[in-house]
Amino acid sequence: MVTPLDVAGLAAALIRIPSVTPDPGHSQEMLAGVLTEMGFDVVHLPFGEGAERTPNLFARLGSGSPHLCFAGHTDVVHPGAATWRHDPCSGTIEDGVLFGRGACDMKGGVAAFVAAASSFLASNPDWSGSVSFLLTGDEEGPARFGTCKVLEWMQENGHTPDFCVVGEPTNPSVMGEVIKIGRRGSMNARIVVEGRQGHVAYPHRADNPVHRLVRILDTLTAAPLDAGSQWFEPSSLQITSIDVGNVATNVIPASATAALNIRFNDLHTSASLGGWIETICRQHAERVVVTTECSGESFLTAPGGEVDVLRDAVMDVTGREPRLDTGGGTSDARFIAKYCPVAEFGLVGASMHQADECVAVEDLQTLTRVYVRLLERMMT
Amino acid sequence: MVTPLDVAGLAAALIRIPSVTPDPGHSQEMLAGVLTEMGFDVVHLPFGEGAERTPNLFARLGSGSPHLCFAGHTDVVHPGAATWRHDPCSGTIEDGVLFGRGACDMKGGVAAFVAAASSFLASNPDWSGSVSFLLTGDEEGPARFGTCKVLEWMQENGHTPDFCVVGEPTNPSVMGEVIKIGRRGSMNARIVVEGRQGHVAYPHRADNPVHRLVRILDTLTAAPLDAGSQWFEPSSLQITSIDVGNVATNVIPASATAALNIRFNDLHTSASLGGWIETICRQHAERVVVTTECSGESFLTAPGGEVDVLRDAVMDVTGREPRLDTGGGTSDARFIAKYCPVAEFGLVGASMHQADECVAVEDLQTLTRVYVRLLERMMT
Repeated sequence: MVTPLDVAGLAAALIRIPSVTPDPGHSQEMLAGVLTEMGFDVVHLPFGEGAERTPNLFARLGSGSPHLCFAGHTDVVHPGAATWRHDPCSGTIEDGVLFGRGACDMKGGVAAFVAAASSFLASNPDWSGSVSFLLTGDEEGPARFGTCKVLEWMQENGHTPDFCVVGEPTNPSVMGEVIKIGRRGSMNARIVVEGRQGHVAYPHRADNPVHRLVRILDTLTAAPLDAGSQWFEPSSLQITSIDVGNVATNVIPASATAALNIRFNDLHTSASLGGWIETICRQHAERVVVTTECSGESFLTAPGGEVDVLRDAVMDVTGREPRLDTGGGTSDARFIAKYCPVAEFGLVGASMHQADECVAVEDLQTLTRVYVRLLERMMT
Repeated sequence: MVTPLDVAGLAAALIRIPSVTPDPGHSQEMLAGVLTEMGFDVVHLPFGEGAERTPNLFARLGSGSPHLCFAGHTDVVHPGAATWRHDPCSGTIEDGVLFGRGACDMKGGVAAFVAAASSFLASNPDWSGSVSFLLTGDEEGPARFGTCKVLEWMQENGHTPDFCVVGEPTNPSVMGEVIKIGRRGSMNARIVVEGRQGHVAYPHRADNPVHRLVRILDTLTAAPLDAGSQWFEPSSLQITSIDVGNVATNVIPASATAALNIRFNDLHTSASLGGWIETICRQHAERVVVTTECSGESFLTAPGGEVDVLRDAVMDVTGREPRLDTGGGTSDARFIAKYCPVAEFGLVGASMHQADECVAVEDLQTLTRVYVRLLERMMT
């Protein structure tokens, strides 16, 4: 028999365990104990060697369908140099607000799902399906040996979910505003144009690589990449640096380098954009080297199936119809999208990564009720 | 009674006096002795203090018109790190070729004019007019206390010439090819665009100064500045550097800087070009600072007067019609052009500033005959 857990108490207990990336503390051991108590099969899945060793945890209750997985992280960003009104690890509750690093990003979210599972199990003895947790200790770091590795292991061991909810803070100011159903892709490109050095007084004997690079960059930024798509805002290309480093005012330099980043929607892939950049470079320079690196393709879980169920759960509890959004930076959902439908819904993120990170206890309770409602809509 | 001097012997003697900028050696003292012997009034005109002290020499024979001044320098550039087949200060003559630093740039040219004056005076007792020498010891250096200061002194003391010939090497490969009648101007500009820093994922909250700078530079280089003018090749703008120095691939930088150089003909001034750059910058950026620095405006001594006399002298001796040219870098003629008509004609410059700098003894003799012919055409 499962006893419903108090979400604020559980969140405060997690905050009190220091776990700044890459030091996991014993946060996952604590959660392993709670989940085992609730009947989950818990597996610790550390990946990576030495300094890269990343603690991860997978826990599942039940073996049937639908399989709903909650994904999150137990690591937090550093408290920073600023002075906090309460110790970042104190988990103090003052006037209905819980303070501490990870309050909203995302120990609060993890606590809400654990509390939701306990409430759901306590109230619905006849549920069917399975519930699992995918928790990593390196979401705020390089993320090379976290969520992506656990997903491989889950697939190999028959644990691929039917739907995954990521508990990152998604609401700008009040609960129920935003569900994220995808993210833009992100890629970096580096362009090196080689020319021929020479004296500025005799440009016909030289080949100015800066002029070629300016022409390339002007072409790349002349028009928007697109006007946005159904669920995405327009893609954006930003030149982040140009570096020549020539201090001689009478010398045409031998080479010129630019760096740029593209946040792109589902109208592009990193391969299509890389090809486009390469083509434009070739139009303006013969000796040019383009290097690209993609930290994540764009992804989208189209509304209609599980996303609608989550949206209905949010509406049931908050009375608001959440906006389905794909904006902002990147998250571990980019890994999950390769395996199953995924959506993100969590707390209010206004204070994330800042001093005095905090969350209203009422919001923690609201989020817990949303997750309970999702479990009910999927499994009863 | 003046005795004609041997140009090769005099050039070799000058080469044997080390006088790498800024150390003058005693080259001007040696020439002062020779010119005094020929009847010239010699004045030593050092300008500048301490490390900037620059030895200069003015010498004049006669007080009437026309006053022809020969301008040159006794300093030479460093021999460099390369191995020379003869010691750079040996003044060795081998197979009719004189080797040494300054052989063509321009101890050979100085020697040719001194030898020409001696021959002319020996053969033309009834000449009328005056001949002068303006010699500096800092043409290859900053040139702040050399020719420009001597010209001021000359004007103040009633020595402004009617025509000045600069003996810099002007011929690419054979004697008689090129007379320089002007030079392009040269200016540097630095453009700093300020934007607003931000995360690449949220470009609407930032203001990317690199994009603004690329637009500015693309506009500045989109079309040639001009198609050239009667006596000048087209002006040329070269971007020499762009520097942002942003290593964070996810950050839009706060500012971006570019440097450029313009070599411009008589269709422009540094002021008109500075205004044009400023206007284009303002079209693309609100917060932009343009700094310009002009090392010399363009100048021209139009063919028709003294230039034609020099051209005829070159044709008389070499049988070639020299091209009237304004190409290449800058020279001390830019200072002289403010006071009187000026043209440049000297030796073959192919080896100037290189290891094994040398000049054919025959070319030294040809140049001497050209200068004699010029004196004859102007003063007999």
